[in-house]
Amino acid sequence: MKIYFYFLTVFILCFSCSETKKNTTNLVKTNQELYDAIKNASPGTEIVLNNGVWNDVEIKFRGQGTKDQPIILKAETAGKVSIEGKSYLKFGGQFLIVEGLHFKNGYSPSGAVVDFKINDEEIANNCTLTNCVIEDFNKLKRDDTDLWVNFWGRHNVLSNCYIAGKTNRGPTVRVNLEGIESINNYHQIVNNHFGPRPVKGGPSGETIQIGNSYTSMAPCYTMVANNLFEACNGEVEIISSKTNFNEFRNNVFYKSEGSLVTRHGNYCTIDGNYFIGDSENENIGGIRIINTGHWVINNYFFNLKGKSFRSPLAVMNGIPKSPQNRYNQVTDVVVAYNTYVNCASPWQFGVGTNIDQADVLPLSEIRSARAVRTTVANNVIYNEKGIDAIVVENDKADGVTFKNNIVDNKGVAFKDFDGGIKEVSLELKTISENIQLPVGIPNDLEPYMGFDFNTIEKDLFGNSRKENNSIGAVVGVDIANPNILDKTKYGTSWYSNVVEPREPITHNVSNANELQDKINAASNDDIIALSGEVYNIQNSIEINKTITIQAKDKTKVQLNYTGAAETPLFALNPKGKLTVNNLVLKGNNSNFAFASLKENMSNHFGLTVSNVEISDFNYVLKVYKESFAERITFEGTSISDCENGIELSEETNDKGDYNTEYLTINNCNFNNVKANVIDYYRGGYDESTIGGNLLISNSTFANCGAKEKNKRLVNHTGIVNVNITNNVFKNNAVNFVSVLWGAKNNKESNNTLSNSGKIKTEENLEMKLMY
Amino acid sequence: MKIYFYFLTVFILCFSCSETKKNTTNLVKTNQELYDAIKNASPGTEIVLNNGVWNDVEIKFRGQGTKDQPIILKAETAGKVSIEGKSYLKFGGQFLIVEGLHFKNGYSPSGAVVDFKINDEEIANNCTLTNCVIEDFNKLKRDDTDLWVNFWGRHNVLSNCYIAGKTNRGPTVRVNLEGIESINNYHQIVNNHFGPRPVKGGPSGETIQIGNSYTSMAPCYTMVANNLFEACNGEVEIISSKTNFNEFRNNVFYKSEGSLVTRHGNYCTIDGNYFIGDSENENIGGIRIINTGHWVINNYFFNLKGKSFRSPLAVMNGIPKSPQNRYNQVTDVVVAYNTYVNCASPWQFGVGTNIDQADVLPLSEIRSARAVRTTVANNVIYNEKGIDAIVVENDKADGVTFKNNIVDNKGVAFKDFDGGIKEVSLELKTISENIQLPVGIPNDLEPYMGFDFNTIEKDLFGNSRKENNSIGAVVGVDIANPNILDKTKYGTSWYSNVVEPREPITHNVSNANELQDKINAASNDDIIALSGEVYNIQNSIEINKTITIQAKDKTKVQLNYTGAAETPLFALNPKGKLTVNNLVLKGNNSNFAFASLKENMSNHFGLTVSNVEISDFNYVLKVYKESFAERITFEGTSISDCENGIELSEETNDKGDYNTEYLTINNCNFNNVKANVIDYYRGGYDESTIGGNLLISNSTFANCGAKEKNKRLVNHTGIVNVNITNNVFKNNAVNFVSVLWGAKNNKESNNTLSNSGKIKTEENLEMKLMY
Repeated sequence: MKIYFYFLTVFILCFSCSETKKNTTNLVKTNQELYDAIKNASPGTEIVLNNGVWNDVEIKFRGQGTKDQPIILKAETAGKVSIEGKSYLKFGGQFLIVEGLHFKNGYSPSGAVVDFKINDEEIANNCTLTNCVIEDFNKLKRDDTDLWVNFWGRHNVLSNCYIAGKTNRGPTVRVNLEGIESINNYHQIVNNHFGPRPVKGGPSGETIQIGNSYTSMAPCYTMVANNLFEACNGEVEIISSKTNFNEFRNNVFYKSEGSLVTRHGNYCTIDGNYFIGDSENENIGGIRIINTGHWVINNYFFNLKGKSFRSPLAVMNGIPKSPQNRYNQVTDVVVAYNTYVNCASPWQFGVGTNIDQADVLPLSEIRSARAVRTTVANNVIYNEKGIDAIVVENDKADGVTFKNNIVDNKGVAFKDFDGGIKEVSLELKTISENIQLPVGIPNDLEPYMGFDFNTIEKDLFGNSRKENNSIGAVVGVDIANPNILDKTKYGTSWYSNVVEPREPITHNVSNANELQDKINAASNDDIIALSGEVYNIQNSIEINKTITIQAKDKTKVQLNYTGAAETPLFALNPKGKLTVNNLVLKGNNSNFAFASLKENMSNHFGLTVSNVEISDFNYVLKVYKESFAERITFEGTSISDCENGIELSEETNDKGDYNTEYLTINNCNFNNVKANVIDYYRGGYDESTIGGNLLISNSTFANCGAKEKNKRLVNHTGIVNVNITNNVFKNNAVNFVSVLWGAKNNKESNNTLSNSGKIKTEENLEMKLMY
Repeated sequence: MKIYFYFLTVFILCFSCSETKKNTTNLVKTNQELYDAIKNASPGTEIVLNNGVWNDVEIKFRGQGTKDQPIILKAETAGKVSIEGKSYLKFGGQFLIVEGLHFKNGYSPSGAVVDFKINDEEIANNCTLTNCVIEDFNKLKRDDTDLWVNFWGRHNVLSNCYIAGKTNRGPTVRVNLEGIESINNYHQIVNNHFGPRPVKGGPSGETIQIGNSYTSMAPCYTMVANNLFEACNGEVEIISSKTNFNEFRNNVFYKSEGSLVTRHGNYCTIDGNYFIGDSENENIGGIRIINTGHWVINNYFFNLKGKSFRSPLAVMNGIPKSPQNRYNQVTDVVVAYNTYVNCASPWQFGVGTNIDQADVLPLSEIRSARAVRTTVANNVIYNEKGIDAIVVENDKADGVTFKNNIVDNKGVAFKDFDGGIKEVSLELKTISENIQLPVGIPNDLEPYMGFDFNTIEKDLFGNSRKENNSIGAVVGVDIANPNILDKTKYGTSWYSNVVEPREPITHNVSNANELQDKINAASNDDIIALSGEVYNIQNSIEINKTITIQAKDKTKVQLNYTGAAETPLFALNPKGKLTVNNLVLKGNNSNFAFASLKENMSNHFGLTVSNVEISDFNYVLKVYKESFAERITFEGTSISDCENGIELSEETNDKGDYNTEYLTINNCNFNNVKANVIDYYRGGYDESTIGGNLLISNSTFANCGAKEKNKRLVNHTGIVNVNITNNVFKNNAVNFVSVLWGAKNNKESNNTLSNSGKIKTEENLEMKLMY
């Protein structure tokens, strides 16, 4: 954590300087005053934004500060100035600092919320955004791309910010390298707290992307250090490094569904990071390696259950003579002095091999080039419960040299790669809730000293390796708790995302007229309890918060919806996460039970339907394009006499997007649902979108699918994870209950079919290439 | 030339050090003594090789010297120790110096003559080869690849050597980057004299190759400075830079048929080099640019007639999302402060565009991506005679910004790119034979200062640009002659390739018996004069030097060859460059007039047939695989009643090789040649092999081709430059006299055909992809 203190010092010094030398301080109260103050600023000027809400403010922060006398734009009180509406901040010039702002309740009308250039002639250098928050500042539509922090130029800094809640397309932070002005940039992304980024449901949901394939040859030298990444679940890549010589040091990846990926570019250093899982979630990954010359050293991996692409260390196969935007071979990589505790599959090689898909893919897509000239040495692995393979070879790891690695695998045998991985007996020492260190490494086990290994001078905690060096991430055993999850060490001085626990309030409703008002008055997580027997509902009920609607007592309450055709009983708005429980829902055959908005779903919705009887709707659930729910669940529910069932198939652009991460149908009963019984779609060939999860279990489907044009009862084209188990299918007029995608994680078991066609597996699915 | 003196100083210092501190000096006289001395060497040891010839010596120079006390292996007298036979030198260790050796009369039995590693564990660092010569040290077969100097490791030096005469496959010098031991290598290739490398006749004939496409992402930092490249004609690339951050400074490219090419890799600096042409040869090129971020500054281009790939500045189109081994787009390139004097086509953009070949090439071969973010500024062009286009746009140069360039084009109009190229009136000032500088640049023309242009601190001659800066390669006009062609400034202290002129001697021969002996006794360039009328020759005459055989008087002398079937009258051995003049050659219908050896053609041959009557042979000329002649010429010659004519079509591996660079048929008469009248072949799709040159002019072909299977009289498949002009074709039983390749430089004019089929042009030729 030494770097942390270094930046803190620089930061303090910087402010002391400006404090002593500044020329003028301007308190500004209107957008125009702000614009004028910027226009008139000179080195040492401090522009102070009056506390309050600033709406529709387009800040082009032009100026030429100096190292000693920067130009500062700050909140009167840090955190008391909110930037709302259609607003952005663009830096153009040098030695400019912005601090204390809170971006919320709005979105950028341009391509970025914070941009380090104004135009191609006005690019930022030595500019800093610090102590700010950007929260839920989403474009209205999921497919409208933007960045929240967009780096250009050189020596710019994003420090001590809290950034969370991006749902629309585009990485949260991007570093650009187009143009010689932006190479060798030495940007610093340090001490930030990257709060939850929900699953996007498709690609382009990275938290940090550094470069792109077209600039993957550029020398970058961006430093990403001492940040906390908490539940950064946007997509499979938390950080996508696509250029050269970047450094990732001392970051904490906490329960984040993704990996740090060296997607393009080479010679990156991944040193002293923490990857903390929860012992269950298989989406929480580690480090995925592509390309040449990376060093993965001193990292700590704890309780990670990810496999394959999401392994703690996933080394990919490359494409021979790969196109620029695909997968170069892994060469000259060093993986040394890392520690893995209770990880399901610590090391995987040949990840992404697809030699057996040569039938459906062009040669330029076949990943057959295995890692070469790669060294894995001085690592420690501890498994509370022994695992079958320390190294999973999706393709042979014959280009990898294993040296002086040790494993306590509780006696379960494994391949030892010419003695490069040795079984020893270790003990776990608890340092903190999320750090347990294997101790008891035999004293006579000297670290292997490969080429340039002498440059690895420190361990995970910054202690010297020069004397008493040992293998594993940590030298020595007397370790103080590093408090890696102390959130005061990251992000702003004034904002916390820790939510105080609050008891949900139950709001009683006794008739249809007061239902919407009570919902509007409720807070997140509250419960709406319906008394009485039947509610006649004429207009859609708008849901824009996390709320449960249920019968007050054990007896189901019936809602008869008489609203217009193609309108829903429950309209799921952005952030509308609805649970309905113990109800009977009845439509007029032309309207819908549930639907998202047709547009402007600027944030995710969610739906849990539990113990409900649904009938006589045109659609049970209709999800429109650019809408996304992390979870949609039907359980203990019967659906009957509907024209259509559950439809999530409007993401037809074949760019890898889909409408829900998890669709779960458990213990349900479908009867006489004529079409789209379940229709869940993801299109586009994209080996690194691992999403779409469909579980259908313990359910009965009868007399369904009569009007299904493609004669398939359950449609899940392109969904990667499908499990159909313990169901009964009878008298469904289809050819196939399901067509499974054999090459992916699609499976079925214990299903009973009568008069319902078959379940078929197709190994390879021909899909549109996305790249 | 400041760097030159710097290295000289380092060099001297280095020797002074070792001189004062050395421990032991061993004079060794046998291979075994040498090997033992190496085994016993320690820092400061000097191993001295006894003057004389060292045969079959395999030097594995292992050792650990120190900076102050290197281990030195040297000739007793520099230049008096020759390494011959099957020999090589390999460095393994550090601070090792080899000096004063002469490699000749042999070849390496391994993959390199001088190798900077012994094996993967013993790699050289801080080792130096200096003051040595490698001359004609060719493998026996052209297709047997080797390198003459093969760099591995870091900080190795090739300095003050003379290297010339490589004819076999493989670059003369290669820098390797496989493995982290060899990146960031800072090798120095300085002060060398690269003497003539003859045209290879196909690819893989570079003088220096730095990296390859598979390591094109590696940081290299090799310095190539102050070298003289003289007639380095091996292939289109004199230097092929395939990695990043290399520097090419103050080199002189003198009448070398090729270019300095940034083939792969990025961010190279090409600063202060001289490219000197001869006002005629279109093969003498300049700088060809591919990829990102190169700076081309302060260079001087004189009398260059190259165009297209061989333009003084050739900026190529890239392939979108190019495969790793093909062509990335050009981006972020700076071309500034260069001076071009009397160049035929100073700047070409979109070179290599092949959009119109989409029919015959896969999409991954189509070069359609134009240069972007590229700046051309502050350059000076002077044309004694105005040219049509200063910028040739093979594809639009719309991604290029032109700023403050000036041209004296003698009033001939040109496209000025928004005023970025201005016409001015200049004068030429002669500095030396090969340097003429345009002077009279208007004082008010300030240089354009693009991003980072302030880093261009010096001009071509090392003078400061800080004050009184001006556009063009040179600041100021009072320039002393830099003597760039003073050969004592390059190469060794003891070897010169300057050949004293010598009058040829004429050797008189009066009968067949003494013919071979006289040839054997003759020296290069001598003349064998035949008296008498008829010579009956029974065995092949071996030719292994440059020699002319002619009738002593004006009357033709007749040679009747009665040798065995498929043996030649004249056997063209390596270095056998034969001119025959004023003869009559007669065979027995089963033997050949001329042929190369069937194998081991370790050096080129040549053939000029002038004023000769040839008849009754099976083949007039049979050239076997792996044989190569720079020139084959028939003039004023009649060829009649032969089964086959001139055959150069055995390079059928389709890797771009061919058997002669120039095949010229002028003023000849072919009659009753039944097949292979002229058969000249080059196979393989390779846009950068520009060779094969066929000229057929002022000749008559009658009654030929009767047995030609493909019904074409003249076969020249794959030959890039073909000109068929002013010939008469009559009564040849073929469908086509020639099928021209429209997309390349194939043309015909003023030919008269009667009863001989047609001449056809096919725009695109389907060829095997080489990559």
